[in-house]
Formats: sequence, C-alpha cells, structure tokens
Amino acid sequence: MNAAIVTVGDELLVGDTENTNATWLCARLADRGVTVRRVSVVPDDVGEIAQVVNEHHAAYDAVIVTGGLGPTHDDVTMEAVAAAFGRTVEANEEAATWLASHGYSGEDLDEGTTHLPSGCRPLPNEAGVAPGAVVESAYVLPGVPAEMRAMFERIADEFEGTRTHTVVVEVAEPESALLDRFETLRDRFDVRVGSYPGERVRVKLSATEATEAERAAEWLRDRSDAVV
Amino acid sequence: MNAAIVTVGDELLVGDTENTNATWLCARLADRGVTVRRVSVVPDDVGEIAQVVNEHHAAYDAVIVTGGLGPTHDDVTMEAVAAAFGRTVEANEEAATWLASHGYSGEDLDEGTTHLPSGCRPLPNEAGVAPGAVVESAYVLPGVPAEMRAMFERIADEFEGTRTHTVVVEVAEPESALLDRFETLRDRFDVRVGSYPGERVRVKLSATEATEAERAAEWLRDRSDAVV
Repeated sequence: MNAAIVTVGDELLVGDTENTNATWLCARLADRGVTVRRVSVVPDDVGEIAQVVNEHHAAYDAVIVTGGLGPTHDDVTMEAVAAAFGRTVEANEEAATWLASHGYSGEDLDEGTTHLPSGCRPLPNEAGVAPGAVVESAYVLPGVPAEMRAMFERIADEFEGTRTHTVVVEVAEPESALLDRFETLRDRFDVRVGSYPGERVRVKLSATEATEAERAAEWLRDRSDAVV
Repeated sequence: MNAAIVTVGDELLVGDTENTNATWLCARLADRGVTVRRVSVVPDDVGEIAQVVNEHHAAYDAVIVTGGLGPTHDDVTMEAVAAAFGRTVEANEEAATWLASHGYSGEDLDEGTTHLPSGCRPLPNEAGVAPGAVVESAYVLPGVPAEMRAMFERIADEFEGTRTHTVVVEVAEPESALLDRFETLRDRFDVRVGSYPGERVRVKLSATEATEAERAAEWLRDRSDAVV
C-alpha cells in the first residue's frame, strides 16, 4: 500500500508553521508498513487543492488531506475535495447527529460545520468540532495537530502495508568511505540501506524479515568502525 | 514572482526528519516578496524527481530543489534535474576549478562530485563540498541545512517579488466570532487576512503598503478584544 499526504495552508507556505502534521503522518504510516510516496503542501485555494487531490488519488492507493477545515473564509478543503471527486458539498446528517449527541446543539455551530462532500463517510472529531470525511480513498482530517492525530488513530487500521524491521548501525567513518560496503549490503542481503550523515553516519537497514535486517547489521558491524 | 520548492529524500517520507529546509526557504522567499505556491516532498527516485521538477518548472517562475546531492547511491538529484530538462550529467570544469582553488584536489573528491547537468551554472558550496547548480529557472541546493542556507544566500538576490508588510493583532475571542469582521476587513482595506487559532487568535494583516496594514489593524483593534 502506498499513500500521498496533502497539507493545506498558506501559513505553511510562508514559513510561519513547521509542517509537523506531515512528519507525524509519515512516521505513523511507516509504522504500519505503508509507503508514503509524496507530500504536497498547497495554498488555501479550491482549484489547487482539488487538482492535487485528484492527481494523487489517481497515482496512489490513499490520499490523506489535512488542514483547512472550519468556519473561516480560507477553510476551503471540503469544497475542494468534493470538487476533486465531482461531488457537491451538502449538510451531512450523520455528522450533525454525532455533534448533537456530544453536546453541540445546532445554534452553537457555525454555519457549514457539517457541510461535507456528498456521499462521504464522516469522521467524528474527538478533540475539536469540525468533522473529517472519507471520500473514496481520500481521507480529510483537521489541521490542528491534536485533532488530526485523534482522528487518524480512529482510522489507522485502514492503513496496512508490509511492515519492515529496521536496525540502525552508527559508524564513525565518513559516509563516502562506506559506499562500497553499502553496495555489497544491497547485493548480499534483502535490505534497504539508508544513510544519514551527522557527527557519525547512521545507517538504517530495513527488511521485511527482522532476522535479515539483523544479519545485514552484523555484517556491517564486523567490517566497520561501528559504535552501535 | 512565484516559486515551488522540491525537497528530496526518503528520510522525510518516513518521518525520520522534520522538513526544516522547506520551512526555512518558504520564510526567506516570503521575506523577499516571493509567493511559494507549492512544496513537494519526493523520494530518492530519478523518475519521480524529474517528473515533479518538470511539472513545477512549467507552472511556476522558479523551482528550488534541495537534497540528494553527494556521492551515495541514493543521491540522484542532479541526474533527475538534468533529465527534467533533457540534458545529460557531465564533469563541470568551473565547479572543479572552484574546488581545486579551495583546497580539494581531484583525489580527495569522490567520483561524480563535480558531475552536473550540462550547460548549468554551478553554485559553490561554502559550507561543504558538493556543488549546487542552476538549470534555467531551477536551483539545485544541498540537503544539509547549513550548506543549503549558505548557498541560498549567495543567490538570494535572484528572488525578488512584491514585498508585503504584515501587522499581527492578537484577539481574545473565538475565531468563529471574528468571521464578519474578517469579511469587512477584506472589503474595506487592501489587505490579506490570515487567522491562526491558538490560546488566542493571531490575525495577520498583510498589505503592499505598510500604512494600509496598520490602518486595517487599527480598525480591528478598535472593534475587538485585542491584546496586541
């Protein structure tokens, strides 16, 4: 299973806000064995959001969209996702019922709070108000991190890929000195090799079998100035 | 002037690394009045990088690509950018000369360090080794933050848009209560209104004229429970 993440918001594109939602979602999906192939950050613009959701829907198994839910002028994500799937936005009864049963009467809510793409599956917001939605394989979540995380955990089971096991070896040699060994690792073992230079080089060895990752790590430790 | 940013790296897509390069570039470009319309995070894959660079080059005035420079197996950005522009990668004499005059002899360097897209303008790396490159309106910078920042500052003057002036008003009211006032602000003043909910709502008012942003802020302060 692969996926794309679309994070919506002008505040991200002017550098006001670090895109921690994308990083968190990438890590959670990786935990579940899902390969994230693309993250796109787009402005609060119906046309651009719709275009990107449409393109990513065609290219990947799932698309997770975060941000731009809510009552303000620049919250246009639901409208854009509806447009991407040729749907309209309409009052969603299930979402209204959930909110009513959780203490929100109609008068408390801003107009449009329960307006979601037609035919969607609404997602309750346990840490806020604005509901999310699932349209085909697109998941629309809020941008407020606590709300986004709580909503993702409700649906996490719907994301399931081939889990990998990773072993990290830290090596006190320059990355360039390790290149031949990386090539040999790839030849001899069924592993993915990632290398992250820093004070030391962190070498991440990932395999679908834990024993294979461990065998590769042992091979590297025996042949390098490994610290861990 | 508008721009897109492409950050390359599997480590970003598994959530191992926060994408601080994108945030930093967005902020620096906003400072210079350049509108960033898109950030794309892509894997270390020649085909995907080439496709995104090609699409963004067609859609935006400038594309800044960071990450995936260097001697390891998964550093394929230069090859991908060359492919996006129908060019090959070849030894770049100017880059080799710059490195030689800064104390790097040929033997010190990994093979391919000075291999850049044909006909490009090489960019010296003052904080590292691997050079960057400019191909048409695409700027290729390293992924190591200190190297990326130093290289960007060398070319920052090439990015110039309409600078805006921003005034922030902090309001101790719920965002939903402010919606009518936001609409009036947009009607009466030549401003962009951004609102960032938190403990208080931060309202950012941006205009090309500083006096216009200040007038709008004064109007809002007079009519709300403004703290700042």
